Formats: sequence, C-alpha cells, structure tokens
Amino acid sequence: MKVKNKKYTTIWYDKNVVYIIDQTELPLRFRIEKLKNLKDFCDAISKMKVRGAPLIGVTAAFGFAQSICNNPKKTNIQKVYSKLLKTRPTAVNLKWALEKIKQQIDKFPDKEKGKKALVLAKEIREKDINDCKKIGENGFEIINRIYKKTKKPVNILTHCNAGWLATVDHGTALSPIFLAKKKKIPVHVWVDETRPRNQGGLLTVWELKNEKIPYTLVVDNAGGYLMQNNKIDMCLVGSDRTTVNGDVCNKIGTYLKALSAFENNIPFYVALPTSTIDKKLKEISNIPIEERDKSEISQMNFKYKNKVLNGRIYPGEVKCYNPAFDVTPSKFVSKLITEKGVINANNKEILKILK
Amino acid sequence: MKVKNKKYTTIWYDKNVVYIIDQTELPLRFRIEKLKNLKDFCDAISKMKVRGAPLIGVTAAFGFAQSICNNPKKTNIQKVYSKLLKTRPTAVNLKWALEKIKQQIDKFPDKEKGKKALVLAKEIREKDINDCKKIGENGFEIINRIYKKTKKPVNILTHCNAGWLATVDHGTALSPIFLAKKKKIPVHVWVDETRPRNQGGLLTVWELKNEKIPYTLVVDNAGGYLMQNNKIDMCLVGSDRTTVNGDVCNKIGTYLKALSAFENNIPFYVALPTSTIDKKLKEISNIPIEERDKSEISQMNFKYKNKVLNGRIYPGEVKCYNPAFDVTPSKFVSKLITEKGVINANNKEILKILK
Repeated sequence: MKVKNKKYTTIWYDKNVVYIIDQTELPLRFRIEKLKNLKDFCDAISKMKVRGAPLIGVTAAFGFAQSICNNPKKTNIQKVYSKLLKTRPTAVNLKWALEKIKQQIDKFPDKEKGKKALVLAKEIREKDINDCKKIGENGFEIINRIYKKTKKPVNILTHCNAGWLATVDHGTALSPIFLAKKKKIPVHVWVDETRPRNQGGLLTVWELKNEKIPYTLVVDNAGGYLMQNNKIDMCLVGSDRTTVNGDVCNKIGTYLKALSAFENNIPFYVALPTSTIDKKLKEISNIPIEERDKSEISQMNFKYKNKVLNGRIYPGEVKCYNPAFDVTPSKFVSKLITEKGVINANNKEILKILK
Repeated sequence: MKVKNKKYTTIWYDKNVVYIIDQTELPLRFRIEKLKNLKDFCDAISKMKVRGAPLIGVTAAFGFAQSICNNPKKTNIQKVYSKLLKTRPTAVNLKWALEKIKQQIDKFPDKEKGKKALVLAKEIREKDINDCKKIGENGFEIINRIYKKTKKPVNILTHCNAGWLATVDHGTALSPIFLAKKKKIPVHVWVDETRPRNQGGLLTVWELKNEKIPYTLVVDNAGGYLMQNNKIDMCLVGSDRTTVNGDVCNKIGTYLKALSAFENNIPFYVALPTSTIDKKLKEISNIPIEERDKSEISQMNFKYKNKVLNGRIYPGEVKCYNPAFDVTPSKFVSKLITEKGVINANNKEILKILK
C-alpha cells in the first residue's frame, strides 16, 4: 500500500538485508528498521514492531532463514526455531512458517540449507501477498452484495488492526475494504480503538486515512450500541489462530462484538489466510492465550506540545491483568473469508479447503 | 467513605455553602470545590466534576435551591429548572430531583420558597445516603449467598464507577461490596477501565484501594474472556435510567458485558435507587443517549515526570463518535437491587415497589 504516495510493504528483503516498518511508533512516527541478527528479529516480534498473525509468520521466516545462512548446523537450527517460536505464543502462523522451512530444508546438505531457507522465506512472503489479495477479492463480493441490496454506503465494524500492517500487504479484514474503495463501492468503517494497545485507533485509522476511506473511531464499549441502533451492516475482523472446527482466536474483545452481532442479526465475518488455521487444534481451551505486560494498560504514548511522551494514565501501583486474545466460538461466526474461498466456520468445510 | 482516614461525602452543605469533590482530577489530585452560583453548579454537572446518576440529582437539587433562595420568582424558577435539566440528558435522577422540588415549593409563598427548597435538597441528599446504604444491605445478601456456596472469594465484575463517588456516600453497585468487606466476606473485584473517561480505572480503583478491597483492572475488551474462563461469579453495575419495564440504561459498554454474562450463565445485577427508575418510560428508544465530545476519546490526562499533563493519544484530525450510554434489555438483567428490595427486572415487580 502507499504511504505518502510511495509504495511500501511491511517487510522486504533487499541486498541481503531485511527491512521492516516499526509499527510501535505509528502514526506518530514512520520509521524503517533493519533486522540484522536473530535478536533483532525476536525483539521485532515480541516488542510488536511487527504484529498481526500473517506478518509475524513472515518475519519469523526471514529470521529463521538468516540464522540458518549464518549457521546451518542442526543444533543451531533447533535453537533458533525454539527462540523464534517463543516470541509470541498465540498466532499460529509463526509456527506454520517455521515448520514449513524446517521440514523442507531437511533433505538439503548443510551448505545449501541457508540459501534454500531464504528462498522459502521469500516464497512465504509472496504467498502472503497473494493470499491477502485473494481474501480481498473474496470478501469484496460480500460487501458488494450488501451494497447492491441497500444502495447505501456499507457500514463495517472492525476490531483491532487486520489491515496491510498486519500482513505483508493488502491485509486480511481490511483487504476487501481497500478493494471496495478501489471499485468505488461506498463503505464506512467503524473502528474500535482496541485497548490496550489502541491498534484500531492508531494503525487502522492511519491505514484508512491514507486510502481516503470514510471511517469513525469509537471506543471498544460502543459497538453494542451501534449494532442495536442499526448503524452496522457487517462485522469484519482478522484472526490469530482458528481451530479446524471454526472457533476464532483474535484480539481480546472480538468475542464481545461477535455476541452483539449475533444478538442483533448482523453477520460476523472473519478474514484469514488458511495458514492461520491450526490443523491440529480442535479444542478452544488448548489455544495458548498470551498474557502481556500490565504496562500496556497503564502507560501510553502521548503527543504533548509536539513531543511524543510516554506517560502513566494509572499512576501509582495498579494491579492489572492483560490477556491479549479471546476465542469466539464458531456458532457466532457467519463465514470465514479465506484465499481459497468463503466458507462456513465448521469442521467439514474447513477440512475441505485445507485439502 | 474515608479518604486518608478522614470521612467525606461527595457533596455537602456547610454554612450556606455547597462543597463538592472535583472528580475530574481523581486520583491524580484530590480537590474540594465550592459551588457559588448557578454557573458553578451547571459546570460541575456538565464537565463531570460530579457524575453518577444519584449525585447528579443531588447536585442539581442544591443548585436549584440556591438559585431559588436568590430569586424565588416563577420565571426564574422555570429558567433555572431548564438550565439545570439541560446539563446532562440521560440520568433521570436529575429530572426527578428538580421535579420534586418544583412541585413541593409551589404551594409556598415566594419568600418561603428558597428555604423550603433548601430543606428538600438536604432531604434528597440524606435520602440518597440512606437508599445507598439499603442497596448495600440488599445486595450484600446476594454476595453472601454465593460465598456460602463456594467458600471462595466472590469474583465480581463491575463497569464504570458506581461507587460512593457516583452518589453522596456508599455507592450503588459498590455499596454491597463495601459492606461485604466490612463483614469480612472475601471479594475480588474485576474493574473495567471503562473508556473513554476511564472511570473504572481512575475512580473505582481509587475507591477500592482506599478500602483495601482486592481488585484487578482490565481493559473493557477483557470481560468476555474472563467470563468464558470462569473468573467471574457475578456482574454488578449501576444505572443512569431504568425503564418501568426493567431495561437498564448505563455507561456505554454495559450491554456487551450483559450479553456475555447471559451467554456464560453468570448473573447480571443492577444496583439503583428507585429514583433512577423513569416512571414515564416504557420504550428503550425514547431514552435520550448523550453524545459527548470527541476529545474524551482522543485526549487524556497522564502523569509524566511527576507532572499531570493532558495530551493527545490520537494526533491529527481523527473522526470520533462518543455515545456515553447504552441500554441493556431487561431479559439480560438477572435482578434489580434497590433500596426497597431485590426484584426481577419486569414491569409488574417494578410497579409494585414504586407504589
């Protein structure tokens, strides 16, 4: 997507160097960062300079490949694999990408492993771009159908950021919205600010503004009220891990919006590449839910007199609990929008597209 | 309740002067303010130096009485009534208090109207203290029953602030919790931070800390996850206006928690004095929902290097929408806890206690 008329992706490889956009400072600062060694890659993921399940997977792939180039010994491969896997527990794309590389380089001699891993990382990156583009096309049909029926701007609620910043390009949940804009189908996006990190208010708003797509920012508490008052035609979110039964793990608070959509007869769509489906997972309770630092709740970046400061909104000792994700049971999910088509969130249809 | 071992109420009358605690700066600063004229009273309510339906009612009563003392002419009474009524549209206690005074002073000659109005304002204040105390006793029985069954600390989720700061003393939703603490029944309170004004994180946490009641602060998004994972025994919130059919208007986001409680078989209680019941209101859609300034979403107080600053968390032009309340239909309300007893949220039982 474009930033100030220049085309960017969130991660790219140029002359042996991996570059990312540091998302922790957006929209206050737009900063490119080089990832030079394994520590840089691990920090980029765990400190959320890159985030979003698909992008985490791609970043890990490059970190893995770079480390294998430097040292293709089996013990090193295993060590690096474990280190990267530990950076974030919930998004399954991380494991998916590492596993893919690990398995496919196994048959190659050590001296070729690095080169092969790098080819695979680039392929994973390319695949993500293509998958997200297809998700956009598949999801667009849904938006277009609503528009054809109502002849009014389609009101879409989204939670957190599942835009191009959560992927390499295009995004998952926002990909159909970007395409709608391109095809001149009028949309209006209700953006949940998405506490604690405010990724809706910071990242999604920034993306929509860049693309000149009409939006309104609301606090996370407001979605139910909007749905009760017919202000939303559809909900559209991403996912960090989806079970083979169609239960959707996504940013904390997604579940509350799904309940409200269900109660108010509003379709609730989840857009995800099939790499986000955990093929081994049937039970919701087995999804590891990351607990993040309480400072995410009590501290924030502020703009004050043209300076960016980090201050405490809850001063003193405040006991906080900060689970980062929740799980929306499949019964509340209207459809899954994948690169392979739009399907019902059930075991039968999921297994069919995974084949 | 006590602040640093000194007993306070949120509003008091001493030697012809009305004093309030300015709640906009809590917990960063504890500041007492004198309300000297009608403008002071109107500002205190509209700028939310005082807030919470019961306290808004009491403050308006004193503002009304003071103005009538200064000028008891009919035209002035009507003018002041209208001005105070406009300060906040949703909390019905405001209208209830003004109406009560207006009707009861009508039969008195002009020169006695002011004195009588002041007596009534004091009575309304006293009644609020007593009502909240009784709400505490009635709600305590519910907490105690759960404790007797589980023999474990009772986990209570509350949204926004319905503590003593929302009333004159004791609070509504927190009143049973304060009493449980006094009676040594172990409780743990999950506190929603309650965006946009963070009244849970700022006010409720401050109250609970002062009373040494165990609590944990969570973002508004987390409640569904907590309920899915059996971390909550009951929800307990206040109300700004309740219809005679038992539909509960309360701080934005209450509805989402009620949906989640219903889905997870967790009882959802609403604590309110009967002055919060709108006797004329049957239809949810007739409740006026206040839309507040978007700066409540985009700006915040924060502590930076021991200074309190107000900064922007969403810099630049950001389109926001900020409805302050939502309505939870009665079918999601387990019981109403009032000063006159604990009842089902339906027309029959509400009319019975209103008699």
